[in-house]
Amino acid sequence: MEVRIKILFTSICHTDLSAWQGENEAQRAYPRILGHEASGIVESVGQGVTEMEAGDHVVPIFNGECGDCVYCKCEKTNMCERSGVNPFKTVMVSDGKSRFSSKEGNPIFHFLNTSTFSEYTVLESACVVKIDPQAPLKKMTLLSCGVSTGVGAAWNSANVKPGSTVAIFGLGAVGLAVAEGSRARGASRIIGVDINPNKFIKGRAMGITDTINPSEIKKPVHESIREMTGGGVDYSFECAGNLDVLREAFSSTHEGWGLCVILGIHQTPRLLPLHPMELFNGRMIIGSVFGGFKGKSQLPHFAQECMNGVVNLDEFITHELPFEKINEAFQLLVDGKSLRCLLHL
Amino acid sequence: MEVRIKILFTSICHTDLSAWQGENEAQRAYPRILGHEASGIVESVGQGVTEMEAGDHVVPIFNGECGDCVYCKCEKTNMCERSGVNPFKTVMVSDGKSRFSSKEGNPIFHFLNTSTFSEYTVLESACVVKIDPQAPLKKMTLLSCGVSTGVGAAWNSANVKPGSTVAIFGLGAVGLAVAEGSRARGASRIIGVDINPNKFIKGRAMGITDTINPSEIKKPVHESIREMTGGGVDYSFECAGNLDVLREAFSSTHEGWGLCVILGIHQTPRLLPLHPMELFNGRMIIGSVFGGFKGKSQLPHFAQECMNGVVNLDEFITHELPFEKINEAFQLLVDGKSLRCLLHL
Repeated sequence: MEVRIKILFTSICHTDLSAWQGENEAQRAYPRILGHEASGIVESVGQGVTEMEAGDHVVPIFNGECGDCVYCKCEKTNMCERSGVNPFKTVMVSDGKSRFSSKEGNPIFHFLNTSTFSEYTVLESACVVKIDPQAPLKKMTLLSCGVSTGVGAAWNSANVKPGSTVAIFGLGAVGLAVAEGSRARGASRIIGVDINPNKFIKGRAMGITDTINPSEIKKPVHESIREMTGGGVDYSFECAGNLDVLREAFSSTHEGWGLCVILGIHQTPRLLPLHPMELFNGRMIIGSVFGGFKGKSQLPHFAQECMNGVVNLDEFITHELPFEKINEAFQLLVDGKSLRCLLHL
Repeated sequence: MEVRIKILFTSICHTDLSAWQGENEAQRAYPRILGHEASGIVESVGQGVTEMEAGDHVVPIFNGECGDCVYCKCEKTNMCERSGVNPFKTVMVSDGKSRFSSKEGNPIFHFLNTSTFSEYTVLESACVVKIDPQAPLKKMTLLSCGVSTGVGAAWNSANVKPGSTVAIFGLGAVGLAVAEGSRARGASRIIGVDINPNKFIKGRAMGITDTINPSEIKKPVHESIREMTGGGVDYSFECAGNLDVLREAFSSTHEGWGLCVILGIHQTPRLLPLHPMELFNGRMIIGSVFGGFKGKSQLPHFAQECMNGVVNLDEFITHELPFEKINEAFQLLVDGKSLRCLLHL
């Protein structure tokens, strides 16, 4: 049930950066092939794989869908018992071994079910999504992580309604994908919050109607947002991975029905900065992983919607480089200059 | 828009006990008439009230429904801008004055929109629900707070599905009402958790299928519940007002779709004992006030369902006393001996 794919394009997301920098000690494993946002072509399939064949256009997904477990059979979740996202996983499920090795024969570990910083990689078939060969494969790379995570958070996790109001905290690729997803759903007002005003230019092209730079206002952001929206937004999205920002995002929603969706990764051991009684005001807070998409079931249709122009992918790819220049691409992300830098293999 | 009612029955809930003991300093206001769970008959109506008249059977509600505000017009919430629950409110909205006074003419403050430890009380009409005169008024007292809070948490806030699994932490009247509501909805398994084993006898009569006494087991409660249910319950309800219990309740739910509903009042300044990343496992946590019921719109139908036997109210009234013996009734609650002690006026 494994598939070997030839990677044609890969890009870098903050999770790669964190792993590269070894931020989470317990998740370190070296030597390792990082990378999880990519697209490519099936080179060969292993025993038991019948849904794909060599030559198929595919997108790897770090949060797999085996189709058989209790989660895959439940429509409320996109978790997967066998092949779901697991930052501690370093080998294949079937035999507990790696498919990569050094010249000396020593194992090189896998990363997030995918390991796409490689000309070839091996994945469980649960982590490979077959895409319409007519779809522009380069852009489909975005569906492998960032764009699906953001658009899906708006569509699946929050279920943003036409005419509703939205606030997005952190305008990286994921935050902007939330904006694009909210715009596509007909949100009437999309407020973008970021301390880097350069993000607002791109943001306005993706549906953001109002912007707030917290370093330029004297009151807390949630107060501004409540004033702008008559009590708060219907949905807020935390895409910064910062607990103080999370609290602002939660407090920016309207009492009674406001929903705060956490997308950011919070490594610190600090607890949720909320008092239990605050939940009695009718605000809700939930987490969203991979935008709530069940990858294998839903991404082919999502790809179709992107091809039909429901979601515009053009603005997300800000740079392109040959794979050899991957360190430059990392630096662009560190400097906040790129949304996605596409690496060509 | 005010109504004066003659109270026939009133009972005591923990919120009265907390107020009587002055637990929350900021909410103290004396002299004050406590009490918020009751039933009675309209004595007279003030200017503007057209939906009720003298002689109507009514139930006061501490969480009113004005029908006109942004919350009342939203189907997602039972909050009310004008007459919603507010522990800091001590006077009427219309003129900022009290309707009670001492012999010397000094004001006596209102409590939770209701003040039912009194032969007569005055409420905003938003806080008075007209009930079918055929309904047994004595039992309808239970709908004024505890039973609606518990049954509604199962029906409205959690929306318990037939065949699902439930865990309830704290088997006072509210917790047992959650059990009764879950049973009525066809839950297949209802696990009751309490350190007082006497609660289990009553609990089994109200639908509880399994019991756990945390002081009699060596492992954490959530581990036991996960073992009993193949990974956790679909819904858990925290009815104890204790943050350690809250964490157990949250952790007892199944990854992917488990929902933890907070009903308990948490006075401590401690934060939610959850790490943000725990929300990425698909568990959800929400608060529930008055069972999510919009009182004036929905309680008349709920009363009808109780009359039809969908929910059995008989087990909740464990004691009855004349109003003069209210201190005995308080003591029964303090000692954990009563669910509801009905006081006759």
